[in-house]
Amino acid sequence: MPSYSAPQREFRFVLDEVLRLETHATLPAYAELSPETIRTFLEGSAAICEGEALPLNQRGDIEGCKWKDGEVTTPNGFANAYREFARNGWIGLQFDTQYGGKGLPGILAECFYEMLCSANMAFSGFIDLSEAVFTAIYSHGSQELKDTYLPKLAEGEWTGAMHLTEAHAGSDLGLIRTRAERQADGSYRIFGEKIFITNAEHDLTDNIVNLVVARLPGAPLGSRGLSLFVVPKLLVAGGDAPARRNAVRCISLEQKMGLKAAPTGTYSYDGATGYLVGDEHDGLKPMFVMVNDARLGVAIQGLAIAEVAMQNALAYTGERLQGRPPSHSKAAPDVAVPIIEHPDVRKMLKEMQAFTEAGRGLALWAALQIDISKQHPDNEERRRAASLAALMTPVLKSYFTDKGFKVADLCIQCHGGHGYVRDMGVEQFLRDVRVTRLYEGTNGIQALDLIRRKVVADRGAAINQFIEMVRNGLDKGTRNGETDVLEQGMQAAIKELDTVTQWMVAEGRNPEDHAAGAGDYLDLLGLVAMGWMWLSMANAACTAMAEDHDDHDFYQRKVSTAGFFADRLLPEASLLAKRAMLGSGDLACV
Amino acid sequence: MPSYSAPQREFRFVLDEVLRLETHATLPAYAELSPETIRTFLEGSAAICEGEALPLNQRGDIEGCKWKDGEVTTPNGFANAYREFARNGWIGLQFDTQYGGKGLPGILAECFYEMLCSANMAFSGFIDLSEAVFTAIYSHGSQELKDTYLPKLAEGEWTGAMHLTEAHAGSDLGLIRTRAERQADGSYRIFGEKIFITNAEHDLTDNIVNLVVARLPGAPLGSRGLSLFVVPKLLVAGGDAPARRNAVRCISLEQKMGLKAAPTGTYSYDGATGYLVGDEHDGLKPMFVMVNDARLGVAIQGLAIAEVAMQNALAYTGERLQGRPPSHSKAAPDVAVPIIEHPDVRKMLKEMQAFTEAGRGLALWAALQIDISKQHPDNEERRRAASLAALMTPVLKSYFTDKGFKVADLCIQCHGGHGYVRDMGVEQFLRDVRVTRLYEGTNGIQALDLIRRKVVADRGAAINQFIEMVRNGLDKGTRNGETDVLEQGMQAAIKELDTVTQWMVAEGRNPEDHAAGAGDYLDLLGLVAMGWMWLSMANAACTAMAEDHDDHDFYQRKVSTAGFFADRLLPEASLLAKRAMLGSGDLACV
Repeated sequence: MPSYSAPQREFRFVLDEVLRLETHATLPAYAELSPETIRTFLEGSAAICEGEALPLNQRGDIEGCKWKDGEVTTPNGFANAYREFARNGWIGLQFDTQYGGKGLPGILAECFYEMLCSANMAFSGFIDLSEAVFTAIYSHGSQELKDTYLPKLAEGEWTGAMHLTEAHAGSDLGLIRTRAERQADGSYRIFGEKIFITNAEHDLTDNIVNLVVARLPGAPLGSRGLSLFVVPKLLVAGGDAPARRNAVRCISLEQKMGLKAAPTGTYSYDGATGYLVGDEHDGLKPMFVMVNDARLGVAIQGLAIAEVAMQNALAYTGERLQGRPPSHSKAAPDVAVPIIEHPDVRKMLKEMQAFTEAGRGLALWAALQIDISKQHPDNEERRRAASLAALMTPVLKSYFTDKGFKVADLCIQCHGGHGYVRDMGVEQFLRDVRVTRLYEGTNGIQALDLIRRKVVADRGAAINQFIEMVRNGLDKGTRNGETDVLEQGMQAAIKELDTVTQWMVAEGRNPEDHAAGAGDYLDLLGLVAMGWMWLSMANAACTAMAEDHDDHDFYQRKVSTAGFFADRLLPEASLLAKRAMLGSGDLACV
Repeated sequence: MPSYSAPQREFRFVLDEVLRLETHATLPAYAELSPETIRTFLEGSAAICEGEALPLNQRGDIEGCKWKDGEVTTPNGFANAYREFARNGWIGLQFDTQYGGKGLPGILAECFYEMLCSANMAFSGFIDLSEAVFTAIYSHGSQELKDTYLPKLAEGEWTGAMHLTEAHAGSDLGLIRTRAERQADGSYRIFGEKIFITNAEHDLTDNIVNLVVARLPGAPLGSRGLSLFVVPKLLVAGGDAPARRNAVRCISLEQKMGLKAAPTGTYSYDGATGYLVGDEHDGLKPMFVMVNDARLGVAIQGLAIAEVAMQNALAYTGERLQGRPPSHSKAAPDVAVPIIEHPDVRKMLKEMQAFTEAGRGLALWAALQIDISKQHPDNEERRRAASLAALMTPVLKSYFTDKGFKVADLCIQCHGGHGYVRDMGVEQFLRDVRVTRLYEGTNGIQALDLIRRKVVADRGAAINQFIEMVRNGLDKGTRNGETDVLEQGMQAAIKELDTVTQWMVAEGRNPEDHAAGAGDYLDLLGLVAMGWMWLSMANAACTAMAEDHDDHDFYQRKVSTAGFFADRLLPEASLLAKRAMLGSGDLACV
């Protein structure tokens, strides 16, 4: 069975030494954060994720979920483990205390989600999706909806699910046909059918808070005619009256490539009772709150799978004896060394580290921006942070899930034939993480969102803010010569990014060219962001080493991996830049 | 269920117009080849692969193989289908007629294997592995072994299997411990256990011809002390005496990520009777004959999965209605177009075509070299072709399986969430093809084989021959301006390849640097080979169009995809070249 040990030292490095959370005490939720409270939080988080969620991961994959007469049974142990998380207060970490949340900074909740997802991605969804649903109701729901649903979600007594996709409406939500009818009592009745709905029927909790996107009579065509409804599994009457089953029903489950312990199914609404969230025909607003939250969650999934895959690759290659690297060529032919000593294996491991460690830095930086956007006393700081978070959300979703898949793939490769065998358990990482590039908007959709809504629509304002931030970091210079190559590479890469951005936002640019270059542009931005984080991390490591910190190997490895990134990965920037500006001319003939 | 239609037009284009088989009539097996005989062969091949093997593919994945008391049951229909292939003469296509083979050129057999593998990769192994076993016995076996085993293999009455890997000896065959003891009657007894052995127990045929690598007492340490033995499942006595079960036994089957219809298991040899192939302690020779044959077979698997994945992506994206590309921005918001009209989807499809079509060209070119190396009347021509085939074998194995995986992955991406669902059937392509990067030597091992044995060991002789061949093709010039960009890109890329080659073979180069750059070097060589093939294909297409051929769209698409390759894929050459020459310095600290 695969192993996992939460990388607490890595988290602390990013939080304490790179992002230096202590310097953000103006945020109310950060006021009482110290390295000690962070350490305690991380220890507790690691303990429950490793202790309760990890042991169920492989079993969950093998058992899968079972459907019978509309009821779904999750794998053995899932319901108990969920109750353990709820009982110990690991649900609703960053929710408002007014509604039963724990009021922690979002950045700490994100550390927890990463650990949980590394330990058991399928299980993590039962907790993670509730967050997206909470956030949508919290931001746009009526007071009555908030009072009814938020405390139950925050305490984990109920879970949440998002109902968007229909058979003919995936990326194109404007095609949604599920319809809603207004009732005399102010509620609505929902009719229709949706597919690929995750965690909307299970045996972990009695009730499930479904958020369903539907269309009212007379609504405008397309996505601007959508409305959002709370459609609970159980209709809770006031007082002690028994709950009544709502007419939302799981009619089948999909057999999937992976994520088998998370039930994904088709749902029908036969006049189900629903309650409007936000205004009629204005469902896009709460939906995007929910979807953006979910997209960052998916980015974390990519990162989390990369972490656990990397850990298992390091462990296996350190133990597996096979062959002699050139440096041992004089050894007897029946002497074999751990394969981690072979340069080609080391290259795979370094690539895994290069993504995973900077990915964590970026993910937590993004979480910090969101915390700032919500809590900073200064209006301009909030706006600026919100703009950076919005810009980077599609980038992190797409880049992290692509790289998470790559790392999971490298993990299999490091295991040789053993990686292909189910018992070893690492091929599950690849099957599980594959879905992250598809759901919550395919990665192609993320790239279009980035280029159209986040770059071209504001004529480059947000991206220029990002570029300026990265340039400022470069101008500061490094503390010694160890990061010169990375710095030079970043100077060139940021120039490429600037050039492509100008090309994209240029007056009269053909939208077909935006679309053709969107994916390469997103990858370029992701790569530059990674380089920026590596530079920040290498600088923090150099600072620590200069202060004669006792963890010298840890810091030296950071500087080394920053060099690897600069040598082998960052040079792709110019290739991506060229491709991004090719336009769509060569795509005419398929 | 996924569809597959053998790309007969593509095969004919490569055979008739690019490689122009008619010009190779000096090879005895090619003497009677004409476009008409080729067309007839391809039609027959397509008919049986589509008709018999394809319908069993998804079912085979779902049913898998079953083990009970040492016996293995293949999925329903496999045994019948196998008999259909044997009965209709589709086994032993290129084997010597002296031993019951059909005596066809290897290049035609390869067309058949690609189709078979696209239709059903797991099933194809039952036929493909027999070829490797036939070839090893044919090249190094005694006359008695040949007479006993080859006709049965050629007619498909028996199948073959290769037994190499042991739990502690995968990439490093020198660690093999299975031992052999010489008997008074000239036979041997085999003792030991091996893992990850494919198709060595099944219900398709009564007997199975196992080739087992083992070590004799007093053998030198390492791979130079290995011997190869035929260890048949059934020991056939002379005349009408009943066959006796040999002491080779399947003790368990693996649960794998994919290729579930191909039984992969652990085997024990409890004094099993074996017959030496070649000389004692000299098993490497016949083993490499077998392994090289199998490696090209694995390359074809990568290509074949790419083809079927591409076909399904084209079909789905042509039907699935979703969104409006920028060019349709004025359409009503509830009007959706086939997603093939979106530039980002087209880019994925073009990338799939760019690999698959040139990959086929290269694979068939390699098969032609092997045919020349065996049959050409001129000694120097034979030597030259053999040298090119040996050079390109690890390249094709690694490059084609990496790209085949990439194309299978893009196919899922083109399907969105539907690609993740088992019923759609395309995620099976990715799970099946994943193993091709691991077995018959991981792709990392291929890269080391290339750099050490094929490039450095002969001080660049073979690779320089390849470079010269490509340069000659460039100097010929193209027939019009349509391939200028590709030609210029190739001029630059071949220069990069030359530079890196000189760097690699330079006196005193550290072997650690060879190992660190091996993978990038292989990818660079693969990319240059693809570019060379695109240029050849574009030129053939231009010739046909100039002659006013009636299939204008077909040829125009070739020129267009060559342009796409030149614009978007070939520029990676300089990045790969730089990486290949970085050395191993930055890999020190993992």
